[in-house]
Amino acid sequence: MDTWIAGTAMTPFGRIEGSTTVELAVQAGQGALADAGLDAKDVDTLYLGNFLGQSLHHQGVLASLVARRLGLRNVPTTTVEGACASGGIALRHGVLSCRVGDARVALCIGAEQLTGAMVPEVTRGLAEAMDQGSDGVSGLTFPGFFGLVAQAHEARYGTTREQLAAVPVKNRGHGASNQLAMFRKPVSIDDVAGSRLIADPLRLYDCSPISDGAAAAVVVNERPGTGRRAPVRVLACEQASGPAAIRDLQELTSFPATVAASRRAYASAQIGPHDLDVVELHDCFSIAEIVDCEDLGLLPVGEAASAIAEGATTHGRGDVVVNPSGGLLSRGHPVGATGLAQIHELVQQLRGDAALQVPGAGLGLAHNLGGCGATATVTVLGAA
Amino acid sequence: MDTWIAGTAMTPFGRIEGSTTVELAVQAGQGALADAGLDAKDVDTLYLGNFLGQSLHHQGVLASLVARRLGLRNVPTTTVEGACASGGIALRHGVLSCRVGDARVALCIGAEQLTGAMVPEVTRGLAEAMDQGSDGVSGLTFPGFFGLVAQAHEARYGTTREQLAAVPVKNRGHGASNQLAMFRKPVSIDDVAGSRLIADPLRLYDCSPISDGAAAAVVVNERPGTGRRAPVRVLACEQASGPAAIRDLQELTSFPATVAASRRAYASAQIGPHDLDVVELHDCFSIAEIVDCEDLGLLPVGEAASAIAEGATTHGRGDVVVNPSGGLLSRGHPVGATGLAQIHELVQQLRGDAALQVPGAGLGLAHNLGGCGATATVTVLGAA
Repeated sequence: MDTWIAGTAMTPFGRIEGSTTVELAVQAGQGALADAGLDAKDVDTLYLGNFLGQSLHHQGVLASLVARRLGLRNVPTTTVEGACASGGIALRHGVLSCRVGDARVALCIGAEQLTGAMVPEVTRGLAEAMDQGSDGVSGLTFPGFFGLVAQAHEARYGTTREQLAAVPVKNRGHGASNQLAMFRKPVSIDDVAGSRLIADPLRLYDCSPISDGAAAAVVVNERPGTGRRAPVRVLACEQASGPAAIRDLQELTSFPATVAASRRAYASAQIGPHDLDVVELHDCFSIAEIVDCEDLGLLPVGEAASAIAEGATTHGRGDVVVNPSGGLLSRGHPVGATGLAQIHELVQQLRGDAALQVPGAGLGLAHNLGGCGATATVTVLGAA
Repeated sequence: MDTWIAGTAMTPFGRIEGSTTVELAVQAGQGALADAGLDAKDVDTLYLGNFLGQSLHHQGVLASLVARRLGLRNVPTTTVEGACASGGIALRHGVLSCRVGDARVALCIGAEQLTGAMVPEVTRGLAEAMDQGSDGVSGLTFPGFFGLVAQAHEARYGTTREQLAAVPVKNRGHGASNQLAMFRKPVSIDDVAGSRLIADPLRLYDCSPISDGAAAAVVVNERPGTGRRAPVRVLACEQASGPAAIRDLQELTSFPATVAASRRAYASAQIGPHDLDVVELHDCFSIAEIVDCEDLGLLPVGEAASAIAEGATTHGRGDVVVNPSGGLLSRGHPVGATGLAQIHELVQQLRGDAALQVPGAGLGLAHNLGGCGATATVTVLGAA
């Protein structure tokens, strides 16, 4: 059964003091329903993507709490977790529910409140996305892991420090147009190279920030009628898993979960990567965007770093625009919300309403990655 | 599309020292696949129900870790959370995946490791199933909440201390036959009434224990051929939500999530409660079984306590047998595993292989409840 995205919304991303995970989720959910022209009573199922609501704030059953605050009926409410891919997984289950006829209207929300906790606690929390029995006990953190990925990419393909810096330069440039982004100030190659060293070779501007925020999408199984915002069709929504521990990774320069999910998505949507106009992908670190572009088949393996630095994915220059929203590096990365913030941006693009519009965008892809490649989702949307 | 349960398994429930959540889940998953005559490579999707793996053990992405240890391909792996109903939610999503054709074989596992943490930490963790913003800050615990439910039931329907005690007496009696149960020693009415007061009127034997364990089921979308264990058909698998905070409950003597999920399940399976031969329901406390029997329509509202005390749901005496496995009170309650342990028992019953067999059992129901009624699942299985 075909499915559409009838509406989306997101809260501002950043440090949002005094708002709980539930409050952020409710705000995004209400916004998406309003955008779709639907009421809370129309919702048949709710999926909530969240990662650290229990670990940091000791609150479970979040999906049910959000449903109650939104005024939903006694519908199924499910919290899903796949670390940083929790939002993409929430969307996928809304799509599955509509496809199987379990729901006519599925509300998919991603939400995360991180800045309410102390930074060391958040760092420890984020490491819950690693295998604690192996990588966790070594003291490895995510900047450390992606630092290793960058070193491996450099050793294998000759990726340079300047090429890494081109990613935040592009994404901060794109994000300057995004009023809901956490960082809207452009940065230069020199700014990145001169920023504080975090995990060699990654520096501060190579890393996505600790953020709060929520985003939501309304999935429906009937093409919305006229008089509402133009609907966007879901052409594919796939999910795959991969090794969650470094010892299980065959190589550090590719994530099998991304490769598997994207190949399934292309087959399902009957498109290839070069048909895409706009992509929102998981640039949790500068090196991640380079690896993602290769894993998704957007750029040749081993050549993505130079191609990105030459503008192959920059708005106004490239054949495909990657992260016109600013991506995680500029928009921010409230973990569970990211996958749905990507959908929000793509829907704006496919409606022709985006702040940094890709002219004539007809086909978009979202890629959400969890852990050290433990899980990934790839969604393909088309202008209906 | 029709779905079947091709195999199930569970680990022993109890204090299982030295086993992690992942190890318990892998053990149950391997057992269920072996029971189904299937291999890890046959699995198309994995759902893991777990509640406190992050809060107590700082480990996320559990579904991916379990998939890797089991040797699954790069299939979708999703952790779902709905407090004590996490296992039932995992099963339901395996069923949905098979129904929509996303999977031919879905492996659904529930797992929980609780005794590795200190009791106060576990008590705090379990309270994450409450609304922390209202009930949590009051210091309320789950025994406290169900103590209030028992008081309300007594005030409204005259439920007595002896009637409450009849529930653990029955379930401990049933559980004496279950070699995987945590408690296999029968208790008397006097034992219950003489046990330590926990939350007035509930005493120690009115409360399910803190336990470790895992259980699993393999859902398939084709009727398994001959030569394997007899398959069991999924006639309905429904989920509903309800108020998660006491301030939102209309009354303390009924859980709207149970009522909504069961009514949908009966409609979907085209049966009524009196058609059932065997029921596994969520007796986290003695009073919960009484309320559940009323909410599920098994016994008349206000009369369940006396009917249970008179043997209406006891093996060898009642028209329907409730919790022949011993239920949570005897089998134990490793939170995320409970919903799938119920499925394991029902499948044994419908195959005619149960330790405490209900003669001629053809139709069974499982009921899994999360939080203060925040979420519930109801599954109806039939001998195929």
